[in-house]
Amino acid sequence: MDYMIGVDLGTTSTKSVLFDLKGHIIASSSKGYPLYRDKPDMAEEDPVEIFEALIDSLTDVVRAGKLENDDKILGVSFSSAMHSLIAFDKDWKPLTRVITWADGRAFKYSEQLKESGVGQEIYSKTGTPIHPMAPLSKLLWLKNEQQDIYKKSKHFLGIKEYIFHRLFKTNKMDISIASGTGLFNIFNLDWDQQALQITGLSKDQLPTPVEPYEIERGMSKEYAKVIGIPVDTPFIYGAGDGPLSNLGVNAIQPGVAAVTIGTSGAIRVVTDKPKIDPKGRTFTYALDRNHWVVGGPVNNGGDVFRWARDNLFDAEKSTAALLGIDSYDLLTEIASKVPAGADGLLFHPYLGGERAPIWDANARGSFFGLTHYHTRAHMVRAVLEGIIFNIYMVALALEEVVGELKSVQATGGFAHSALWRQMLADIFEQSVTVPQEIESGALAATVVGQKALGLTDKIENISGMLGDAETYKPNPENYETYRELTPIFIRLSRQLQTEYENIANFQREHVHIKLTEK
Amino acid sequence: MDYMIGVDLGTTSTKSVLFDLKGHIIASSSKGYPLYRDKPDMAEEDPVEIFEALIDSLTDVVRAGKLENDDKILGVSFSSAMHSLIAFDKDWKPLTRVITWADGRAFKYSEQLKESGVGQEIYSKTGTPIHPMAPLSKLLWLKNEQQDIYKKSKHFLGIKEYIFHRLFKTNKMDISIASGTGLFNIFNLDWDQQALQITGLSKDQLPTPVEPYEIERGMSKEYAKVIGIPVDTPFIYGAGDGPLSNLGVNAIQPGVAAVTIGTSGAIRVVTDKPKIDPKGRTFTYALDRNHWVVGGPVNNGGDVFRWARDNLFDAEKSTAALLGIDSYDLLTEIASKVPAGADGLLFHPYLGGERAPIWDANARGSFFGLTHYHTRAHMVRAVLEGIIFNIYMVALALEEVVGELKSVQATGGFAHSALWRQMLADIFEQSVTVPQEIESGALAATVVGQKALGLTDKIENISGMLGDAETYKPNPENYETYRELTPIFIRLSRQLQTEYENIANFQREHVHIKLTEK
Ligand SMILES: Nc1ncnc2c1ncn2[C@@H]1O[C@H](COP(=O)(O)OP(=O)(O)OP(=O)(O)O)[C@@H](O)[C@H]1O
Ligand SMILES: Nc1ncnc2c1ncn2[C@@H]1O[C@H](COP(=O)(O)OP(=O)(O)O)[C@@H](O)[C@H]1O
Repeated sequence: MDYMIGVDLGTTSTKSVLFDLKGHIIASSSKGYPLYRDKPDMAEEDPVEIFEALIDSLTDVVRAGKLENDDKILGVSFSSAMHSLIAFDKDWKPLTRVITWADGRAFKYSEQLKESGVGQEIYSKTGTPIHPMAPLSKLLWLKNEQQDIYKKSKHFLGIKEYIFHRLFKTNKMDISIASGTGLFNIFNLDWDQQALQITGLSKDQLPTPVEPYEIERGMSKEYAKVIGIPVDTPFIYGAGDGPLSNLGVNAIQPGVAAVTIGTSGAIRVVTDKPKIDPKGRTFTYALDRNHWVVGGPVNNGGDVFRWARDNLFDAEKSTAALLGIDSYDLLTEIASKVPAGADGLLFHPYLGGERAPIWDANARGSFFGLTHYHTRAHMVRAVLEGIIFNIYMVALALEEVVGELKSVQATGGFAHSALWRQMLADIFEQSVTVPQEIESGALAATVVGQKALGLTDKIENISGMLGDAETYKPNPENYETYRELTPIFIRLSRQLQTEYENIANFQREHVHIKLTEK
Repeated sequence: MDYMIGVDLGTTSTKSVLFDLKGHIIASSSKGYPLYRDKPDMAEEDPVEIFEALIDSLTDVVRAGKLENDDKILGVSFSSAMHSLIAFDKDWKPLTRVITWADGRAFKYSEQLKESGVGQEIYSKTGTPIHPMAPLSKLLWLKNEQQDIYKKSKHFLGIKEYIFHRLFKTNKMDISIASGTGLFNIFNLDWDQQALQITGLSKDQLPTPVEPYEIERGMSKEYAKVIGIPVDTPFIYGAGDGPLSNLGVNAIQPGVAAVTIGTSGAIRVVTDKPKIDPKGRTFTYALDRNHWVVGGPVNNGGDVFRWARDNLFDAEKSTAALLGIDSYDLLTEIASKVPAGADGLLFHPYLGGERAPIWDANARGSFFGLTHYHTRAHMVRAVLEGIIFNIYMVALALEEVVGELKSVQATGGFAHSALWRQMLADIFEQSVTVPQEIESGALAATVVGQKALGLTDKIENISGMLGDAETYKPNPENYETYRELTPIFIRLSRQLQTEYENIANFQREHVHIKLTEK
């Protein structure tokens, strides 16, 4: 029989999944690595650790597949975290670790770009919001604050390109990953002159843009042997994890939004051409030349629910432990005892600043509308609703760019909760489908691989590989309540904004002092 | 020996205290009665229950004093809750219960007065903020919504005047209580023509204004016998509890503010003339002709701390019970582990709407500035600080009216906590004195009684009767932190105000439905 391997290069682990050509999982293996946060705002990984995790997980999955003589692995195809950056000297020796999307040290430079107006100009060509996450900002940070490294740097890659370089000595980047660098013109599919100029780079310092369907063959013998696959096994570049995740949950038809809430969250919709938000609130990344993913990333997803659980609801957390049940399940059960709208208690979830929809690193969380009759049950419901209200604000921005949304596919940890899925349907006033839990990123990568190898004619064929899905319809009583609250939530998030900077400055000054004293 | 009795007619109990002429407490007795809240916003008492509580407590305290032959009670003098209203028919039969200051049913009428501008006009003559608490608004409510009663009403009194009427058949009201009705011109010390006109009353329906030093003698024999005092024992009218409480804590020198936080709170300062706030944020009530108390009442005092304890900190509440310690003490201990300013977490305490400083019945509570590092310890500190920040806003309004404040006398349940007293000193940047706990309202009433009877020449002599006081100095490190946060707190309370009405309307509509369904 024929198989494909899909690899998901994630922020804290790499997962290799062996599929048959119908998308059934045969085996999978995941290998973790640390995210280094030695300094404030730093978030780095070690590229060598990731490379080894990849080799290990491939080795494991091939072994676990127990392949026989007439079994064949037709290809290995990739999904990868976006926005990462590694600098190399002229001999391809790494000068930095992997500076990940989560690294915030370039904050000052993205702010400068925004304030000067240059940011908006570049965004309108690259589709990448001006933000510390983007390699564009990171290069400016290197140029200004790490001059030694910057001067020695002759090449720059992301983590997936580094992997291909190690295996094939290539210097290529697929256009999907490229579209998340902030340096890539998504209209002419080449590196942007203006972006090159302000970062001081020349084009030959960046990899050659290629299609996600680009194939490499002839990997190093050494690793082929370790893994247990032929040297000529095709490796397909694949794409970024955001775009592939839309494909993986079958949200590639016009107007079908994919809402993911894990630690953080995002909402994304596919269009056939790159589209730009004049207000700069959304990103536009390529899946391939004909599929563009427009969306907004939010920092404050399930992480905020976790904060609430660990702080406001530590008593319930230990009750759940005694009961031997999941603490999130207990809390959503408590939240369900309170009516939609939490009796007029609103929560803005900006505990860690926010990207979409407000793009304000100074944003902070708040409860609003407290009265004597509000209990902690109201607070937990308000927290869950607040996370969704915020994503709904992004959806409204998205609709301005791509047109009306028609339905929603929900994934991520929050999709475990029936209450939360219903809330999503009610706040969005849209039917919400929850795909069966599968390795959707890795699967989507193999579908891109199948197309590259001529095994399927279009990536849309993934729909035949997905299992049954559960659907939630909006409840009229609830959505009428939410219709009254949504405008208050939105107006408040604007009004509060004027003091975010002041309180954030206070916190930086005072809380930092405390941390360094420890 | 000679004695005086001070009576404190409170909202939920009446207390009679037997003092010697130096202000030492010999005996005291308190009798409670219910506050009737049968309908939303209603807050009534039964006048007969209060009268009986008075007789009972006087009887008790006289018995407990174990007076001998050469002992004599020189007088009984009163302090009373303000703003109460009872309607009587032509035969002095009560047509209503006591409609107390806490009754909110006249809300619509106080709003109308404010919107038409008539409110500000009347306030500038009466010194009583336009608010449902005031008899002025209550009369408009009776006139419009209780026409049967309104038409039959021939007389109107407050609770203290009702007591004197029962004992002496009089129809008099001291100018201090009168100054809290919203109907009394504090500049010419008579009922205000315009206020009479809009309520449709004639002057003979209201009691005759008298001095707090007015004396009645010759009470009904029946009650004199029950209580165990001579029929000719002098009864002195005394004054309102707010003004007397300033006297009782020796806050009657210029610039000495009395800050009280019990269930609700207030800050008050004495001036020698009535003074009006052009912005309508403060009240001006008489203590007597030469002492005027300017101040602001806040709804959200210790009650908000209680809400926080019962909801956010129920786990600590039961820990305190197991430890056998006071739960408020445990919570302030937890709050003290967090630095001043709660690491940039702010709390606006408007759980039940607010009177001073914002006079907005729609105001609601909020937490602002939440981040991942905030814990519940930060939240309890923010709650305590928020209650004080709010009173500090009133203090700033007060300074515009009466000039600079120089020091603060702190009383009420919150003064039990050393942390809270220090917070008050730090946020106000002023030294805070906490008088020894005494029955200050009842004591102040007896000092007024002593002056009425010629036993002392001026009420300021009370200072010699008060015990030692503890003083707290502002801590520079803390007040510098608070200086940064105060402006944010104040600006936010303005910005949030625009959505208070919307969320309050939502809550009225939706939460009320739920209540009636039960
Ligand atoms: N040990 C303490 N530490 C801190 N705060 C306290 C403490 N004890 C009481 N309080 C606060 O004081 C409040 C009660 O104050 P107090 O006993 O003056 O109330 P009250 O007599 O009901 O009020 P009011 O005089 O307004 O009717 C409580 O709700 C609490 O917030
Ligand atoms: N049973 C549940 N009910 C509600 N929310 C849940 C549940 N389980 C997990 N979550 C939420 O999902 C988050 C984790 O999502 P996940 O997708 O596993 O994270 P990651 O982005 O790290 O992969 C948790 O922080 C929590 O907020």
